[in-house]
Amino acid sequence: MAAPSQSQRPSPERVFGVLNAFQSSAALKTAIELGIFTTIAEGADRANAIAQRVNAAERGVRILCDYLTIHGFLTKTEDRYALTQESAIFLNRHSLAYMGTLADFLASEAHKRDFDALTASVRKGGAAVAQGDNTKPNDELWVSFARTMAPLTTVSAGFIAELAGAKEGKGCKVLDIAAGHGMFGINIAKQNPNAQITAVDWAPVLAVAMENAAAAGVADRVSFRPGSAFEADLGNDYDIVLLTNIFHHFDVPTCETLMRRVHAALKPGGKAITLEFVPNEDRVTPPMAAAFSLIMLAETDAGDAYTFSQYEKMFESAGFVKTTLHPVPDMPQQVLLSEK
Amino acid sequence: MAAPSQSQRPSPERVFGVLNAFQSSAALKTAIELGIFTTIAEGADRANAIAQRVNAAERGVRILCDYLTIHGFLTKTEDRYALTQESAIFLNRHSLAYMGTLADFLASEAHKRDFDALTASVRKGGAAVAQGDNTKPNDELWVSFARTMAPLTTVSAGFIAELAGAKEGKGCKVLDIAAGHGMFGINIAKQNPNAQITAVDWAPVLAVAMENAAAAGVADRVSFRPGSAFEADLGNDYDIVLLTNIFHHFDVPTCETLMRRVHAALKPGGKAITLEFVPNEDRVTPPMAAAFSLIMLAETDAGDAYTFSQYEKMFESAGFVKTTLHPVPDMPQQVLLSEK
Repeated sequence: MAAPSQSQRPSPERVFGVLNAFQSSAALKTAIELGIFTTIAEGADRANAIAQRVNAAERGVRILCDYLTIHGFLTKTEDRYALTQESAIFLNRHSLAYMGTLADFLASEAHKRDFDALTASVRKGGAAVAQGDNTKPNDELWVSFARTMAPLTTVSAGFIAELAGAKEGKGCKVLDIAAGHGMFGINIAKQNPNAQITAVDWAPVLAVAMENAAAAGVADRVSFRPGSAFEADLGNDYDIVLLTNIFHHFDVPTCETLMRRVHAALKPGGKAITLEFVPNEDRVTPPMAAAFSLIMLAETDAGDAYTFSQYEKMFESAGFVKTTLHPVPDMPQQVLLSEK
Repeated sequence: MAAPSQSQRPSPERVFGVLNAFQSSAALKTAIELGIFTTIAEGADRANAIAQRVNAAERGVRILCDYLTIHGFLTKTEDRYALTQESAIFLNRHSLAYMGTLADFLASEAHKRDFDALTASVRKGGAAVAQGDNTKPNDELWVSFARTMAPLTTVSAGFIAELAGAKEGKGCKVLDIAAGHGMFGINIAKQNPNAQITAVDWAPVLAVAMENAAAAGVADRVSFRPGSAFEADLGNDYDIVLLTNIFHHFDVPTCETLMRRVHAALKPGGKAITLEFVPNEDRVTPPMAAAFSLIMLAETDAGDAYTFSQYEKMFESAGFVKTTLHPVPDMPQQVLLSEK
């Protein structure tokens, strides 16, 4: 519905479609909550059969499945629905790449509330109703993040482990800042039996990372430092510091302050690995990385999706000699590798 | 963001994009509220100049305008923004086809609340938190509809006036059921000096139609019958009865009941003209008409976007001898013409 109008003549369809786009978020979230995709994967393919399995009204399921078909998440042949390739991979609970948990975080009541106040945020130039500057604990939000967003990390965690040389198996001290679910550090520990991980985050968030470390069988090589990345004793002599999805929450001086602490914690020749949404210098491409700025406007005091030249300058100010940019294959994010 | 992934390989981008799609509704509504498009039309083209004119923060305006560019509502060259053709026509307040008022209705708090409860609606098979069956007054909602949605009627009102033979100028009694803003009847009255219009709707809604009739200079030929289309005395001997955007609110028996009342009110040879979202028999094309079903699931007890064969059957049951389908050029809706 958000695609350019098919007709050559100007049409109000796109305006109409985008004003109604909140409906597509709700529809996908509802389908995930009800387990529609999983039920179809298990073999139910007509509205009445699906409805029976998910304990919903046939009329409701029929209309929802038609809508999901219109939006490319299902196909429909006569009155039978089937999964698309993407839905089978990402929306079926039995799939290893299942990312349905993201709905709880991305389309949460709190995030929708932030966007309900977007006009006030644009006037103010920062979040009108949000949690402040993100340097103080906000356990509920970040525990939810840690519990739901791990599926999105599979590809980028593998990419980062490779950049960190995990497969070489050398002794390696890794600091994972604002670790959240902990999956980036845990993934290095899984690939490198000689890696030791230190995870920093608020205590209730680290509890999730502890569970994940135990599930991955690396709990004995992951230690935890509860607290703020700006205040906790980070330790020192690290080979690698991971900074995944953290800088975008802050203004430039705060990012520089953090990166100076990282610089101090690294051993000479150590590397900082940053995972971020990095738009091009035009700030409007590529679409997902560039659009991330609006989320930071609505939800932080002064965060942003920074360009590579902005990061380069910040990291240089913090003492790093060289930063290079590495796109993560098939993902909207990029990795910045900075050398001390 | 809702477009199919560019990459050949399956990517989580589409799931991510649709879960975040509520942000695009909020961004467009905010831009309309702040008058961003109008301000650019008036000559401001950099974030700081626009911000000054709309009384907002430069940072907020810069991020919002970048987002609008990503979604195709603006273009950006260096740091200067410009309107697209569609934005110039539909989103600039000075344009005759301005449809910014739609934001207040389509993306209203009430409608967003309905979609926040979509999972419950799918389970129930009808609105979980809405206004009931729409045969009882719900003044606030429908006054808002009447005040905001008129811009969307320009093309279809012209098309309907032509089908009604307004330009021939013959004496013609027209009944406009659930008239709302009244623009469909008013447009016939403007084109045919011998047309007499009777508008039926709840009294507070008719107050909006009265204003519009006066503004169009046809107030002396529009009379008003406040009340429910199901209970008010509709009068009789009409040449034309207009039924615009009404059937989709009701279940099939209720639609038939209404159409029988219409049949009784028409003179022999008279015509009922219905404007509706009419999906194809597959119920998943064309996208906008088919997607309208979900709105009816979320907001009514038993409404739907009915197919042509469903309408044909209902109208035949109500006594009409023949119904034909007429697509409205460049619009997502269609007109059904039924002969008594």
